[in-house]
Amino acid sequence: MIDLEVLRDCYTSTSSKIVMLVVDGLGGLAHPDTGLSELEQANIPNLDAMAGQSACGLTTPVLPGVTPGSGPGHLALFGYDPLKYMIGRGALEALGIEVDLQPGDVAARGNFCTVDSDGALVDRRAGRIPTELSAPLCERMDRIELEGVQVDVFSVQDYRFVLRLRGPGLSEAVSGTDPQVTGVPPLASEAQEPSAEKTAKLVNEFLRQAQKLLAEEERGNMVLLRGFAQLPNLPPMGEVYNLDPVGIAAYPMYRGLATVAGMNVIPTGRTFGDEVETLHKHFDDHDFFFIHYKPADAAGEDGDFEAKVKRLEELDPFIPRIRELNPDVFMVAGDHATPAIMAGHSWHPVPFMVHSKLTLGEGIPAFNERTCAQGSIGRIPATQIMLMALAHAGKLAKFGP
Amino acid sequence: MIDLEVLRDCYTSTSSKIVMLVVDGLGGLAHPDTGLSELEQANIPNLDAMAGQSACGLTTPVLPGVTPGSGPGHLALFGYDPLKYMIGRGALEALGIEVDLQPGDVAARGNFCTVDSDGALVDRRAGRIPTELSAPLCERMDRIELEGVQVDVFSVQDYRFVLRLRGPGLSEAVSGTDPQVTGVPPLASEAQEPSAEKTAKLVNEFLRQAQKLLAEEERGNMVLLRGFAQLPNLPPMGEVYNLDPVGIAAYPMYRGLATVAGMNVIPTGRTFGDEVETLHKHFDDHDFFFIHYKPADAAGEDGDFEAKVKRLEELDPFIPRIRELNPDVFMVAGDHATPAIMAGHSWHPVPFMVHSKLTLGEGIPAFNERTCAQGSIGRIPATQIMLMALAHAGKLAKFGP
Repeated sequence: MIDLEVLRDCYTSTSSKIVMLVVDGLGGLAHPDTGLSELEQANIPNLDAMAGQSACGLTTPVLPGVTPGSGPGHLALFGYDPLKYMIGRGALEALGIEVDLQPGDVAARGNFCTVDSDGALVDRRAGRIPTELSAPLCERMDRIELEGVQVDVFSVQDYRFVLRLRGPGLSEAVSGTDPQVTGVPPLASEAQEPSAEKTAKLVNEFLRQAQKLLAEEERGNMVLLRGFAQLPNLPPMGEVYNLDPVGIAAYPMYRGLATVAGMNVIPTGRTFGDEVETLHKHFDDHDFFFIHYKPADAAGEDGDFEAKVKRLEELDPFIPRIRELNPDVFMVAGDHATPAIMAGHSWHPVPFMVHSKLTLGEGIPAFNERTCAQGSIGRIPATQIMLMALAHAGKLAKFGP
Repeated sequence: MIDLEVLRDCYTSTSSKIVMLVVDGLGGLAHPDTGLSELEQANIPNLDAMAGQSACGLTTPVLPGVTPGSGPGHLALFGYDPLKYMIGRGALEALGIEVDLQPGDVAARGNFCTVDSDGALVDRRAGRIPTELSAPLCERMDRIELEGVQVDVFSVQDYRFVLRLRGPGLSEAVSGTDPQVTGVPPLASEAQEPSAEKTAKLVNEFLRQAQKLLAEEERGNMVLLRGFAQLPNLPPMGEVYNLDPVGIAAYPMYRGLATVAGMNVIPTGRTFGDEVETLHKHFDDHDFFFIHYKPADAAGEDGDFEAKVKRLEELDPFIPRIRELNPDVFMVAGDHATPAIMAGHSWHPVPFMVHSKLTLGEGIPAFNERTCAQGSIGRIPATQIMLMALAHAGKLAKFGP
């Protein structure tokens, strides 16, 4: 995988504009009854026509066979080696509910749980108590005070919450407290390296106070913490690539990932239509636009083949609306495949196309897994599509004399 | 990218012979009127027929999207990771005029310029004075003496020259003196790391003496220096691959690049026809031949589609003349694409074929971008074609027991 900083001297600022549309979970697999994938079955005339005028290929998100989560899937598209820059679970969970996460902050995923009078775990999810019950408990814990650090607790949903610690000298190298079985007490958090001892002490003090505050509750009378994580220290896209990059996404997690990559996030509405209008409104002001389409992934994760086909068909009419803007480079990519027949993310190479003045069209007849495999780009690591974008936009100067 | 030394134990000396024909700027893009690339339009029956009997593919010079200069483009073909082994501008300029450059020497690109009586720049190119005027000034500067190093100044063309410093303890880590604007004096050269302070002092003393020697000139009364560079420390191809490699090239820069890679350079004439006859004459004496065809690149750089087609057609009749020699391996490769419609180098994958007894032919109908994309080799980094050559020549032994 390339380190995006290797070519730093070649990244050149110009007035040309790049739009990167990320269709979450874009790739799929053939339905056993028809032999056609979701993209092949979908009626997507605008995407198909654009493929004919583009250079096409397939991207490998991390490595062949490796199924990425949303974090590595997106970081790769932005050019960051996902094996080098990892976003831990706690940090990703925090980004997903739009918790402000600053460099140095430590975030953890929290669960309410039920313990008996000896402190042994009876239910690791506190009977899946609903948000109405858990949210007030989060507010109660939010008032916990620890020496030298700011403590914030954010309700996620049902029995889940996020703990954020903010202050100097914190470390993510502390162990989780979930023993994964009932009948034993929660574990104490332990430092995994000497510099994390302060954090482990703070976490255990937080747990001591939480247990006291929750003692009278019937179900949520204790908490478990895991996935302690800080933001990875990413070189900001804007600085590295000499770009003014912005992210437009209806879902918080993707706004968070854009922020982590150093993009500015433009507020938008709740639908992809809102995102496209936001793109129109701000198109003059920036030179790189990441715009995110979520619904296809959600349908794929549900294992609903027809719904995923429908979500792709609903995306299609927005393609001409984006092309109206005449971006110098318009790329359509996916962070990973989410084949409906697998009801989850997968490792399969993901269709990709890049449209610019320099791709006069290969005549690829449609935009899907099979046709893109015949495209001139071939199979490339997802980390390299930013190089393609910059090259086609005239923003990647010659390397070496 | 692979490090060519990784397989050192596998490189085996045999009597078999490899010819690597590098067609400079080989790849192209479709003309908008015809939809055909330069190679597709050209009448090249011999290259096409050879493709049918070869294994074909596309090479990526550096990385997808990355446009290489001549230096990285060629180093990659010889197996050197171009991101690891960089040739700086001054060194490449020196190679281009056949200045003898030894390990440790520092070379810089020089410009004559015009300064006013206060020493402020009036013209950064000295009114582009012609070679007749600048060559004697180079001779004058050539007589400058600095303590502990040998100073040589070589005229290039018009207002351009090369400065070579030779001596112990020199460093390339010194800054250029061109402020890029007029109205201010030339900059002093500065050490970019402590070990370069001696070199910076020498450079500034050179400039002081040059200014004195040139003071009476009307236009070329001062000089600017930039692109200070030493040769990269390349493991010699012959040693690494267990070969006796030679380079045959009509243009000095490519002879220089062959030398940098550790090849011996065989003197030849000024045309490709001369090169081919040189190949014939010395075919018995060595086992690896790099032979370079320049004209296609020049036409592409000029943005002259028809001329590039013509240059490719002029290459074609030499193919049977090379094949007469019955080399065990005959590869045709390019250092990068130079699409006429871009009038410059580009990042696009470059057609490639390797012919040997072990390629009985895939029936690829022609030698161009589109057909090679369907070949059995697929898309490989240019750094890997030496491995293909050695394997087909029986010079790459089994890796591991």
